Amino acid sequence: MRHFYVKSTIGKTCGDFNLNDTAGGAGRLDIIARSINSALWLSHSLRRDVNFHTILFGEPNPPIYIEIVGDKVRKVQPDERNITIFIKKAIERFNEGRFTQTTPGIYSGRRTFDEMIEKHKDCDFYLLSEGGADISDVGISDNAFFILGDKEDLTAEEIAVCEKYGAKKVSLGKVPYLSSHCIGFLNVYLDRATEKKSVD
Amino acid sequence: MRHFYVKSTIGKTCGDFNLNDTAGGAGRLDIIARSINSALWLSHSLRRDVNFHTILFGEPNPPIYIEIVGDKVRKVQPDERNITIFIKKAIERFNEGRFTQTTPGIYSGRRTFDEMIEKHKDCDFYLLSEGGADISDVGISDNAFFILGDKEDLTAEEIAVCEKYGAKKVSLGKVPYLSSHCIGFLNVYLDRATEKKSVD
Repeated sequence: MRHFYVKSTIGKTCGDFNLNDTAGGAGRLDIIARSINSALWLSHSLRRDVNFHTILFGEPNPPIYIEIVGDKVRKVQPDERNITIFIKKAIERFNEGRFTQTTPGIYSGRRTFDEMIEKHKDCDFYLLSEGGADISDVGISDNAFFILGDKEDLTAEEIAVCEKYGAKKVSLGKVPYLSSHCIGFLNVYLDRATEKKSVD
Repeated sequence: MRHFYVKSTIGKTCGDFNLNDTAGGAGRLDIIARSINSALWLSHSLRRDVNFHTILFGEPNPPIYIEIVGDKVRKVQPDERNITIFIKKAIERFNEGRFTQTTPGIYSGRRTFDEMIEKHKDCDFYLLSEGGADISDVGISDNAFFILGDKEDLTAEEIAVCEKYGAKKVSLGKVPYLSSHCIGFLNVYLDRATEKKSVD
């Protein structure tokens, strides 16, 4: 399995936003939608071995955790608007008391960053960080959980949680990329590493 | 300079489509919008050394060629909807008789695939192709012009034009990726190769 988490610093936690304004009133949910596209889509299929995670920290009801299970997700199209429709449903159908499947393969619930990490403690964590070791110098496990910020970096507290769970800091180079581009690169980079390994 | 061309097999050549339906009525212009995002955006800036090209072959008035010059483009936001607003303007302000700057850094005009390639004959062409040589075995020049299909491959005639101009066929691996993901990977891959070269 491969996991990607992208923090949503200001993602709205009430579904009353306009789908025509996801970069504005929805609290930059466009970043999350593009990250989901990069994490899950192939040319004519979805990556069934990838799960995507986000936590929305925007008003009025944070934090809302959303998980997308690549093996179970259905009917979502790759365009930002369509992906955002499903994020909106995950917010609207959020249930305070119960982790809920809001549409096939998409879940929402109340979960903090610490709780999400604890839940996946069997994974190997990698924190994308400009000051980290170059990806080519880091062995990436087959059960990787990548952690990324959005427009904002993680907080010091969140980084401390990552460190507590042994996260390795990795960098893709000196250029600062969009989160979605980092994810897209990582997917192809790891596919290529796997292909190479199977040839060697 | 780095150039990316993505063919738009059914992209509408009249701006009467609904921005809420770019994956449907607009003829998969969502693919082009995502490709533009991948080609041009960095985290807090645009790639000023990248130009993006597409030709819309959809009804009712094909072909319409659109060029986006990274060094001159202004005011465009990275979300699909905003990018599509600018593509729509490039279509609406298309002028049969004159290559036209429709908004800052974005141009449209009547140009065939052959004419576009001829216009850039000083570039080194690379045709993304599953049967091509692996990217790691191909030296990519500093004046690369990458050619990609969308949901459809190029036609035999278009491939013949590429061959006539010396295009090398390159592959990113055995997995079939979305055009936008290929572009995103190539940008980071080439940045990394440049960084490595400057260190060596």
